[in-house]
Amino acid sequence: MSDNSSFVLRGGIAFSESINNIVTYYRGYLVCVDGICQGAFSELPEKYKDLPLYDYGERLIIPGMTDLHVHAPQYTFRGIGMDCELLEWLNTYTFPEEAKYQDIVYARKAYSFFTYDLMRCFTTRAVVFGTLHHEATLELMNQLEETGLITYVGKVNMDRNGGEHLQEADAKASLEATVKWLDTIKGKFQNTMPILTPRFIPSCSDELMKGLGQLSKEKGLRIQSHLSENLSEVAWVKELVPQSSCYANAYELFDTMGTPECPTIMAHCVHSDEMEMDILKKHGAFIAHCADSNMNLTSGIAPIKKFIDAGVNIGLGTDVAAGSSMNMLKTMLITLQASKMYYRLVDQSVKPLTFEEVFYLATAGGGKYFGQVGTFKPGYDFDAVVIDDSKMFTMRDMSIRERIERMCYNDADAIIKDKYVKGKKMFSSMVV
Amino acid sequence: MSDNSSFVLRGGIAFSESINNIVTYYRGYLVCVDGICQGAFSELPEKYKDLPLYDYGERLIIPGMTDLHVHAPQYTFRGIGMDCELLEWLNTYTFPEEAKYQDIVYARKAYSFFTYDLMRCFTTRAVVFGTLHHEATLELMNQLEETGLITYVGKVNMDRNGGEHLQEADAKASLEATVKWLDTIKGKFQNTMPILTPRFIPSCSDELMKGLGQLSKEKGLRIQSHLSENLSEVAWVKELVPQSSCYANAYELFDTMGTPECPTIMAHCVHSDEMEMDILKKHGAFIAHCADSNMNLTSGIAPIKKFIDAGVNIGLGTDVAAGSSMNMLKTMLITLQASKMYYRLVDQSVKPLTFEEVFYLATAGGGKYFGQVGTFKPGYDFDAVVIDDSKMFTMRDMSIRERIERMCYNDADAIIKDKYVKGKKMFSSMVV
Repeated sequence: MSDNSSFVLRGGIAFSESINNIVTYYRGYLVCVDGICQGAFSELPEKYKDLPLYDYGERLIIPGMTDLHVHAPQYTFRGIGMDCELLEWLNTYTFPEEAKYQDIVYARKAYSFFTYDLMRCFTTRAVVFGTLHHEATLELMNQLEETGLITYVGKVNMDRNGGEHLQEADAKASLEATVKWLDTIKGKFQNTMPILTPRFIPSCSDELMKGLGQLSKEKGLRIQSHLSENLSEVAWVKELVPQSSCYANAYELFDTMGTPECPTIMAHCVHSDEMEMDILKKHGAFIAHCADSNMNLTSGIAPIKKFIDAGVNIGLGTDVAAGSSMNMLKTMLITLQASKMYYRLVDQSVKPLTFEEVFYLATAGGGKYFGQVGTFKPGYDFDAVVIDDSKMFTMRDMSIRERIERMCYNDADAIIKDKYVKGKKMFSSMVV
Repeated sequence: MSDNSSFVLRGGIAFSESINNIVTYYRGYLVCVDGICQGAFSELPEKYKDLPLYDYGERLIIPGMTDLHVHAPQYTFRGIGMDCELLEWLNTYTFPEEAKYQDIVYARKAYSFFTYDLMRCFTTRAVVFGTLHHEATLELMNQLEETGLITYVGKVNMDRNGGEHLQEADAKASLEATVKWLDTIKGKFQNTMPILTPRFIPSCSDELMKGLGQLSKEKGLRIQSHLSENLSEVAWVKELVPQSSCYANAYELFDTMGTPECPTIMAHCVHSDEMEMDILKKHGAFIAHCADSNMNLTSGIAPIKKFIDAGVNIGLGTDVAAGSSMNMLKTMLITLQASKMYYRLVDQSVKPLTFEEVFYLATAGGGKYFGQVGTFKPGYDFDAVVIDDSKMFTMRDMSIRERIERMCYNDADAIIKDKYVKGKKMFSSMVV
């Protein structure tokens, strides 16, 4: 790797040492060698004194965030139709929009809006749904590769219930299209990885699900999908897969729940009970918790604190366009609020998430899906975001810990100045 | 009034015709004569053709918003300490901060941050808590008068439970200080009105409450306070006023619940039941619904749809610093999410608020407290905000209705270009 991925940054540093502890340094030093973090320090160790040093003054430096669940083609209609619940929203807004990505000219322009904004938010890693279209998904991957972000991207599989314009002919056609897509991208990208993407069980026949389970095993490919988001959806899945003991078990039956070495991401898990929790844990699956989306579509609130205590892997997802923004700070705020309401309104034995826990989920929790990612401990990939929070005037001498909490509750006033992914600076003056 | 408060604006116009209906005009005309709205039109009526016309092109023009509940001195610590509940938060963060406003130099600087940001947000009218300090409250009123915004401001009364540094000596001293404050400001301001402000019952002795009730009657002064925000607070009030049948009745007993002609604002009402609802309605009181605050402090969710159906007056409050931002769009989003969770988690007979309802609450609902304010129907005060939403790229030909919904769900990308209060343009290029 080139020399320019070895350097020192100076500023107000914050990162999770554990899920319950945020470590901070005022005017500290953060060292990157060959794209890998060497740790944060109050005084710069002698051995790093020859590295170039970039001093960000009073600005904040935090780990890049991981968006574990976002639908690229839905970005075009974020923030509208939010008075619907899931199934109505899919049929009225989502499926008609995604059908348009059959047209590569449309897809190219629409995805340019998505990638432009993704570059300019707090996210350095993302796990992305495309559409079922071959060309459009290639275009999305090309554009993402150019950004320098590190992502997984899925060509969506759906062979039923998508309506006339958003459905593959049958399981065979869907599987063939998937293999064709995988063949086309082989060796093409450095930072943009494929992920198998059955939309959710209502969109995929048993045969298609089984075929994807097999493909995952054969090629060592990861899977992403949706689980127990909405009560009507859960009931529907029970009808569609009557032999399953629960929604998660339906995925298990098709061999799509993954393994700890090849973990599946399941978005939502709002209505997951202990049985589902055990299944997720057994398979080493990651929950993509999407609180903004789950409130917007009146889905409910996932009992995240329970999942954490049970040791299930969890990160946060913005779930655009059911979530209305790719701003992970806003997602953190809504995650906190959701957990407080779960405690207040549902179950007072489940304590609200702390700010420490939510900061961890947004950075290290989701980052774990990508390996050693999401914190500034030595050996982790150097993903960092530099933030100017000076627009938020204050009268007090605020600690770094207070400033990152305030920034999360006032996302509109936290301005990104620079972003690094695996030690590579994306570009300067990111502000549009 | 001078000629420059008579003009025509052109752009994408939206306003509430009723709580269930938003009227929109694409490239419509909005007419202001002597600070009063003459209505919105698709074609400009002949009689207004000589007025100066300002064409805002594709920009949106919506009614100015009313923030029915905001604590000016708390703005300095917004967004921190949010893992606390109400009483701990008051003692740890709020009271020590408010005590600092004893120092007029501190107050002057701190309030300048508040007024600067209040000018630059979607709010044109606000009902504001100060602190208990005479000089600082005068300073706040002076600064607000200069902004051109129209506000009520309260010198806070508290003669118990404020701790050593934030408490008046006794009821008599508190009442005398209030009369002195009222005498000092008599005739001084055009847009900045006084409002009696007992903090809440735990902060005010029976004698003080009774004295304020009497003062309100004698001088025709309105009152603002807090009601049924947090369960521990509700229980405490029951202890403090054992003869009351409920928290609202305690205010009634002290004659501080107001009348339809001189309405009291009660912030929160999270735990208000039918009995409290009846009391609020009988007195013509306004509920300041503060969903952001109520989630942040784990207070709960107020059943706003029930209050609407019962015909109680309601507007929205940001409740900074328990709410973390003065951005009313964000408050709208969280209001929607809160009502959806109330429906999903508490009572499925109480339907979630629609976007139409929440837009109404933010504009006309709260505006009603100021008279004919908060919509563009003829005869209403001309309060308007001009918004540039072009940062939100889209692929579709969006309706004005869709754009205002999207803007509410993506507040950070809605840029205020101009703001008018009662026909007076605040200033150009508001963006900082």
